[in-house]
Amino acid sequence: MYLRNAWYVAAWSDEIEDKPVRRIILEEPVVLYRGLGHAVIALEDACPHRKLPLSMGQVTGDNLRCGYHGLEFSPDGVCVHAPGLARIPPKACVRRYPVAERYGLVWIWTGNPELADPDEILTVAHYDDPAWGVNLGPAMDVSCGYQYMTDNLLDPSHVTYVHKTSLGNAATADVPVRMTILDNGVLASRWMLDCELAPFFRPYVSFAGHADRLQHYEVRYPSHAIIRDIIAPANSGAPQGQLHPDVFLLDSYNFVTPVTEHSCRYFWFQVRNFRPDCEATDQALTNDFISAFNEDLIVLSAVDYGMTNKRTPNTDIETDAAPLRFRRMLQKMIEAEHAPEHLVS
Amino acid sequence: MYLRNAWYVAAWSDEIEDKPVRRIILEEPVVLYRGLGHAVIALEDACPHRKLPLSMGQVTGDNLRCGYHGLEFSPDGVCVHAPGLARIPPKACVRRYPVAERYGLVWIWTGNPELADPDEILTVAHYDDPAWGVNLGPAMDVSCGYQYMTDNLLDPSHVTYVHKTSLGNAATADVPVRMTILDNGVLASRWMLDCELAPFFRPYVSFAGHADRLQHYEVRYPSHAIIRDIIAPANSGAPQGQLHPDVFLLDSYNFVTPVTEHSCRYFWFQVRNFRPDCEATDQALTNDFISAFNEDLIVLSAVDYGMTNKRTPNTDIETDAAPLRFRRMLQKMIEAEHAPEHLVS
Amino acid sequence: MYLRNAWYVAAWSDEIEDKPVRRIILEEPVVLYRGLGHAVIALEDACPHRKLPLSMGQVTGDNLRCGYHGLEFSPDGVCVHAPGLARIPPKACVRRYPVAERYGLVWIWTGNPELADPDEILTVAHYDDPAWGVNLGPAMDVSCGYQYMTDNLLDPSHVTYVHKTSLGNAATADVPVRMTILDNGVLASRWMLDCELAPFFRPYVSFAGHADRLQHYEVRYPSHAIIRDIIAPANSGAPQGQLHPDVFLLDSYNFVTPVTEHSCRYFWFQVRNFRPDCEATDQALTNDFISAFNEDLIVLSAVDYGMTNKRTPNTDIETDAAPLRFRRMLQKMIEAEHAPEHLVS
Repeated sequence: MYLRNAWYVAAWSDEIEDKPVRRIILEEPVVLYRGLGHAVIALEDACPHRKLPLSMGQVTGDNLRCGYHGLEFSPDGVCVHAPGLARIPPKACVRRYPVAERYGLVWIWTGNPELADPDEILTVAHYDDPAWGVNLGPAMDVSCGYQYMTDNLLDPSHVTYVHKTSLGNAATADVPVRMTILDNGVLASRWMLDCELAPFFRPYVSFAGHADRLQHYEVRYPSHAIIRDIIAPANSGAPQGQLHPDVFLLDSYNFVTPVTEHSCRYFWFQVRNFRPDCEATDQALTNDFISAFNEDLIVLSAVDYGMTNKRTPNTDIETDAAPLRFRRMLQKMIEAEHAPEHLVS
Repeated sequence: MYLRNAWYVAAWSDEIEDKPVRRIILEEPVVLYRGLGHAVIALEDACPHRKLPLSMGQVTGDNLRCGYHGLEFSPDGVCVHAPGLARIPPKACVRRYPVAERYGLVWIWTGNPELADPDEILTVAHYDDPAWGVNLGPAMDVSCGYQYMTDNLLDPSHVTYVHKTSLGNAATADVPVRMTILDNGVLASRWMLDCELAPFFRPYVSFAGHADRLQHYEVRYPSHAIIRDIIAPANSGAPQGQLHPDVFLLDSYNFVTPVTEHSCRYFWFQVRNFRPDCEATDQALTNDFISAFNEDLIVLSAVDYGMTNKRTPNTDIETDAAPLRFRRMLQKMIEAEHAPEHLVS
Repeated sequence: MYLRNAWYVAAWSDEIEDKPVRRIILEEPVVLYRGLGHAVIALEDACPHRKLPLSMGQVTGDNLRCGYHGLEFSPDGVCVHAPGLARIPPKACVRRYPVAERYGLVWIWTGNPELADPDEILTVAHYDDPAWGVNLGPAMDVSCGYQYMTDNLLDPSHVTYVHKTSLGNAATADVPVRMTILDNGVLASRWMLDCELAPFFRPYVSFAGHADRLQHYEVRYPSHAIIRDIIAPANSGAPQGQLHPDVFLLDSYNFVTPVTEHSCRYFWFQVRNFRPDCEATDQALTNDFISAFNEDLIVLSAVDYGMTNKRTPNTDIETDAAPLRFRRMLQKMIEAEHAPEHLVS
């Protein structure tokens, strides 16, 4: 159901301070806090005695103390203090989760800790490029299973109907989408040539007239997307790789963390090749994407409800080629984790 | 569980305009809208692709377009447009429901469309009679299975206790009820002779002194009731069919639409033989019936809860003769629908 | 799951007047009211006909009349009036529960009525002693199974962490607890010698300096606790039974009534050997205990949730010796009730 040997986003870095914070990730309760060295520590959020959330207890240096009987756990999840007891109960330990901070986000590894390698966290091109700007989104709670999110993020054609007054317009209606299988995910993309600009982009594009537009919808395992828009003056050679000086480049990074079977938490930011260091542009883009993404979330929560409670069969359409390929590949990876030689501790 | 080859009320006619409206009927999601010719169209409210409610989409002429990928459905439920796809997906169709408008209400046929005959919709006597007045009730959501409603509508004796300060009084306590089996339902009725008027009727009855009162509680399959009150001066011959010029005649029409196993939607209006075209009387009667019916709805939702969660057995009483007969007959009709030769499509 | 042949608290006496009141006790609906002689009557809160709660009906003298069809039940649960029916339906009866009033509380016997003996209700020492004061708590609804409450009431060591700024302090952290098996329950207790006063007690203790403190945590079957605190000047001989004139004695009585598998209702009061007839002290103690008990209830509802939804095994610790012994003994008593010779009617 979930790929466990993978990095997910647990929180924005600035959400985690020295007070313990509870999050549900892949249906598991997790407590996050910062220890003495300011590093983020992530443990199972349930005392092994009577399952009181440790997030209801107290940070003591690098350790976390339960609020019921004072059992105290070190960052590796071992009980190191049991006040009033003759000895520390041998089974009193909690699961620890490897953690890393990248791009202002706290990443958590939900599988076998020995396999955790922070270098496998996806690379964000231009994140520190002084010529590029960055705008951050708020974490959003979504009432759908995470795979309806990855379906959507591999589906450029929905913009015509879901975002008909923003990211989409008539120009996006009929151009077929091309699927590419990648080593670490699936890409659905299309060039729309000599078309009108969709309303969303008009405030940000510096040239007038028709455009050639690339929609690059790439989703990587387990559930992270890079949505790349290239908008260049029509017939300036963009599809052939010639980037006009006025070209609009915007990469939207989308990180989906499963919470339960029917909910997930959505973290995102964008990087762009224009107006770096312009806070007004940061804010405007964030607001525009909040509006657009809310259009998705309303549809996706209704889709989750509809598919969960359906009374008649549903059918796939051509548009599902990339989403279904992604689901099948991910399913194989999940099954491989459960094969004997890869057993997760 | 439900009789499917039957007409139910889906909505008041003025609730349906050119924007799509979602209703749950017999546990099925239904979308209702008016097409170009102003006729009401009713379709399954779930796109066959990913089950997004079509009610979240857009009416386009006579058709309804899904808000996710633009699949467009005609009034007969067939997908007629699939933008960007090489061909219309062959399985992309939704169920269509026959619809008719009568008495300001939208009626829906939930069974085999080929069997739908609007002439089978119950006839409302005096509806267009200029000597009679009509008052309309608001649609009411009830937290009980529809059969607790039909039980109640075949049970004149509950008025003494449920409506003890309105429709009932001491005069109604001890008179036995007579059951009559009809071709299309069951009737429970009783004459109460030479009795005091119940408080509900005093403002409307034009004579003074004691009365002879008929309670005529008739429920027709699947779940529609005609509750007829005749109140005549005592000993003026009403039980023998002689109607005194001051006689009070009021027919209450009650249409119950199952929503889920434990909820239904209740539509009603009354016709009367006095003060036609008097809006003040219309409003007063509607208000009085809202109060009285709310007394029922509180009891019936507690009965549904109590019967669903009962911890000890329950027992029937004599009063249940007509309700139980109605339930048995309806059950036979439901079973007949599931017999091989009557299979609903 | 529950001991049925036992007295539980149903309500504070002043909660029950001549209007019927519904309570859920051991998962059963119960209606309580006072009859003509002012005695409290307790019946199954479900009419045997269609399970309408009798608490929605009307008290008529000593009887209770259903609000649907007027069936009327006597205090022993027998239907004595069935208006309009040829005869009283033979199966129309409801369960009756023996009731007694003691200490301002209504006690209910949930098992075989023939075994009910009010003399078995726990005795409250000093309740009527003019030298002692009494303060009463409000009934509190708790979102945990009742056995998490009895665990807590047999666990003096939790005060250090759950009540760290009130009933507990550093002095309470490391002193071992001694378990005593009683005929009618279990006792966990400890003396803490020559220690600082916990903040909770300072406003009430009349001597200065260090103290010897007894925590006496006694829980009796099925789920009632006497929590006794003795606080005496240090080294004044209290552990040996010599009570200094300034000794602080406070007995907290705690009565836990199971409601559902995951909820219970909590009744409590305290008696004390100081400032009798002082309303300000009554009020201050009640307020202090409300604050302290709310600290427990937050933890216990999280424990119930955590144990119910646990994803990894939990483990017991030494602290659980007394609670687990109590649970085992109670379990044996419950099983004995289900053995053939003790069948509850």
